[in-house]
Amino acid sequence: MNKTISVVIAGPRGKMGREAVSMVTNTPHFQLVGVIDHKHDGKLLRDMEGMPAMDLPVYGEAERCFLETKPDVLVDLTKPDVGKVHLEKALNHGVRPVIGTTGFSKEDLARVTALAADKECGAIIAPNFAVGAVLMMKFAQMAAKYLPDVEIIEKHHDQKLDAPSGTALKTAQLITEVRSPKKQGHQDEREDLPGARGAEMEGIRIHSVRLPGLVAHQEVLLGGEGQLLSIKHDSMNRTSFMPGVKLCIETVMKLDHLVYGLENIIE
Amino acid sequence: MNKTISVVIAGPRGKMGREAVSMVTNTPHFQLVGVIDHKHDGKLLRDMEGMPAMDLPVYGEAERCFLETKPDVLVDLTKPDVGKVHLEKALNHGVRPVIGTTGFSKEDLARVTALAADKECGAIIAPNFAVGAVLMMKFAQMAAKYLPDVEIIEKHHDQKLDAPSGTALKTAQLITEVRSPKKQGHQDEREDLPGARGAEMEGIRIHSVRLPGLVAHQEVLLGGEGQLLSIKHDSMNRTSFMPGVKLCIETVMKLDHLVYGLENIIE
Amino acid sequence: MNKTISVVIAGPRGKMGREAVSMVTNTPHFQLVGVIDHKHDGKLLRDMEGMPAMDLPVYGEAERCFLETKPDVLVDLTKPDVGKVHLEKALNHGVRPVIGTTGFSKEDLARVTALAADKECGAIIAPNFAVGAVLMMKFAQMAAKYLPDVEIIEKHHDQKLDAPSGTALKTAQLITEVRSPKKQGHQDEREDLPGARGAEMEGIRIHSVRLPGLVAHQEVLLGGEGQLLSIKHDSMNRTSFMPGVKLCIETVMKLDHLVYGLENIIE
Amino acid sequence: MNKTISVVIAGPRGKMGREAVSMVTNTPHFQLVGVIDHKHDGKLLRDMEGMPAMDLPVYGEAERCFLETKPDVLVDLTKPDVGKVHLEKALNHGVRPVIGTTGFSKEDLARVTALAADKECGAIIAPNFAVGAVLMMKFAQMAAKYLPDVEIIEKHHDQKLDAPSGTALKTAQLITEVRSPKKQGHQDEREDLPGARGAEMEGIRIHSVRLPGLVAHQEVLLGGEGQLLSIKHDSMNRTSFMPGVKLCIETVMKLDHLVYGLENIIE
Repeated sequence: MNKTISVVIAGPRGKMGREAVSMVTNTPHFQLVGVIDHKHDGKLLRDMEGMPAMDLPVYGEAERCFLETKPDVLVDLTKPDVGKVHLEKALNHGVRPVIGTTGFSKEDLARVTALAADKECGAIIAPNFAVGAVLMMKFAQMAAKYLPDVEIIEKHHDQKLDAPSGTALKTAQLITEVRSPKKQGHQDEREDLPGARGAEMEGIRIHSVRLPGLVAHQEVLLGGEGQLLSIKHDSMNRTSFMPGVKLCIETVMKLDHLVYGLENIIE
Repeated sequence: MNKTISVVIAGPRGKMGREAVSMVTNTPHFQLVGVIDHKHDGKLLRDMEGMPAMDLPVYGEAERCFLETKPDVLVDLTKPDVGKVHLEKALNHGVRPVIGTTGFSKEDLARVTALAADKECGAIIAPNFAVGAVLMMKFAQMAAKYLPDVEIIEKHHDQKLDAPSGTALKTAQLITEVRSPKKQGHQDEREDLPGARGAEMEGIRIHSVRLPGLVAHQEVLLGGEGQLLSIKHDSMNRTSFMPGVKLCIETVMKLDHLVYGLENIIE
Repeated sequence: MNKTISVVIAGPRGKMGREAVSMVTNTPHFQLVGVIDHKHDGKLLRDMEGMPAMDLPVYGEAERCFLETKPDVLVDLTKPDVGKVHLEKALNHGVRPVIGTTGFSKEDLARVTALAADKECGAIIAPNFAVGAVLMMKFAQMAAKYLPDVEIIEKHHDQKLDAPSGTALKTAQLITEVRSPKKQGHQDEREDLPGARGAEMEGIRIHSVRLPGLVAHQEVLLGGEGQLLSIKHDSMNRTSFMPGVKLCIETVMKLDHLVYGLENIIE
Repeated sequence: MNKTISVVIAGPRGKMGREAVSMVTNTPHFQLVGVIDHKHDGKLLRDMEGMPAMDLPVYGEAERCFLETKPDVLVDLTKPDVGKVHLEKALNHGVRPVIGTTGFSKEDLARVTALAADKECGAIIAPNFAVGAVLMMKFAQMAAKYLPDVEIIEKHHDQKLDAPSGTALKTAQLITEVRSPKKQGHQDEREDLPGARGAEMEGIRIHSVRLPGLVAHQEVLLGGEGQLLSIKHDSMNRTSFMPGVKLCIETVMKLDHLVYGLENIIE
């Protein structure tokens, strides 16, 4: 049913890159046609440690890769500065970019959005490929319109330094976009031990649990009279990002413009 | 900010009706202007047991009520056959109906949809007013497109006769609309005790827990490699339906056609 | 199998008292033989509003009740000062007291413990009859010996004034009795929003969630390398106390001394 | 405070063995003094792949190891037939055995129990080192005495073949020891889809969930009027067994007889 999509991966040696090489080579309607790695120019994939024993070319540079392999899609899992360069080169060669790096300024986004529109070429920038986490945030935001009393409990292993987690802060911020600030809990509530009611963002309470044995978990609780809606995401390891990468590869083929953020391609 | 919406309630003596009378009279931008109750025609609301001490008219019949009170909205919480009659009468008098009864056949729906379109009058039929439950089902359906491995655990008090619950069956059915039937679990999995893997609908597994102390709970689990998304709804009592009734009253004012199902007015 | 136990209830008009009357009259091997209520001396139970239509005597005073009905057990659900008096009177009449009131000082306890020992009469003082909650606390304490990293999440309706809840504080305190104070989480962890990591008692973190739709819930999380043990109690309403009252009535018959606290009769 | 305990590990190359070598060498009051591995007799630990770079002797045979290293404790993580032999040899040399293998018959147990008693030597056989799981089972059994309505939900990755899990079956069996068989749920309940109510053991219902993203989880739900007690264990990986091994090493030093099962050394 699906036409085969040819893919080039930049950054194959990173953790995400290795997972992506594995996912693309194991997906029937995807075909890996090359990788971009500045340290291994001219080698074959089979020569790189831990890579599949395939006779695929490794390119030290993106443009020659695009010219020789003519891929449908570039998946970039490198670093912010490299990702930006690869994005523009891909658009200029008619290759649809799926960029997993961060660090795009408003000006950057305006420029590459215009470029993609001009080329009528699909492009996705996705700083977070975790489909499950993105769904959780989207659902929490949707539900808060109808159940505006919200608390967030995020749980991580006890080696995590920051609290609350970035995902919890982003979730709270998304919710503030659809509801007015409000004081939650009883008007006269009091903390007999300081911190009991957690951190606060515009009335939304955030609680951070840190224990050995935990990995990365978040639950958003939305309460209404007589009912409670809970949306929870448990992330066990990095492979949880691959369904998101896969979704982006499939979706970018149907686009004729640039989309920023996985949440904007999920319907 | 909100213009006051004048409301008539049919079926004020039922459980839902009593809650609705209380909710409407306690919502600042709603105004209760009358009730319809065939057993108390001509009385005042204050004469009915358990009702607020208000001098509002009770009508035994809908048309005279509409003519005299000229309400914006009719909220009908009666019985299927009565709800159908009230729906049409309301449309014919330019009153926007919010109907909470079930039992509409395809032919019924076609006829009243056409009538509402002809009158350019908003109308909502909502057999289930539980916003939280409707959100849970909607989110489960959305998420199953990206995480197609799904199991449902529903938990109820041990006096419930049927298993699985109607909500679980409806959730599973909604999910089958967006994913292909698939065998979940290991191809060679076996039940050493029959029933361990639960009931099945097109591969989706449903588990029904019955214990004293439970009320009405459902959790939809969607698994992907390395991650789990869970969407859970706990319903404690009937007041959990009032946010849905309120939402319908507000929404029907903005409609010019008939909408069937709360899920179709939630965005 | 069980010999019938005759019971007198003091304080039958309170919330707990009403539940207790209902429970005792509905338990086959219990027999209600009288109630103590200073406002209804000389009436029959059937004359008191909301009570079962039984021809049982109501006594305004405890001693005459004990002399005339010769009960096995007194269940006292009155007020602290009354409970203390009834406890001593019961012991002096050879009636085994189950006292549900609070407010016993160390001196009070020493005196009534000696009295019960002297009379070789069973007696139970249980300021908290919630078996499930008591089991949760006991299990949390037992488990903390082996899994000493602990956080507590307690969730209540948003009309609760104090945070953390009394049960959470008592749970944490019980845990401190079996483990040394320790800093949990990363040594260098930081709160980017104050309160995110919750309240602290000797290193144990406590998080208080307040939302409409919640009733009274607590979860104790104990983490170890690669594993998590969670002990959770959900309390829906006051009837959750009756199994504890029932357990006390049965247990006090086998005792020949005073026991303080439900946790000390649970094995 | 703790005297250093010298330890020998048999079976260091297995998954559990590697974890144990790492745990013992990283625990301050434990000292690894040798390993037993029939394939590497005469080598040093540092010569074995993936082992710490320590100059510790590897013995192909247990007796010479005991004679030369004179350990306090033997930790055996080999296979059933080897574990049995090592257990007896250890007792005969005054080394306290902690045996992690299965397969002991009643006769085996009677014989080694007598041998340990005769030698007045501590010994532990623990087919399951998961402290958290053992605590969960123990608590479930304790609680079922007071809250006899029980259902078990166990969740595993979708590559698991059998359902219910061994732990769920064992938990149910432990519960049947403390409560009478009883029909749970409504007397007239019906399954509209077969299997909805799960598997059954003497009335206890067991539900098995299988999804990608899950690891190994079990929750025991105990319901009573108006309340619910839940005991849950999440196991993320094999390191969750090391606290149990550690506990056994410490406990066996205080014993003068044989104990079978981790649940019998937990208080």
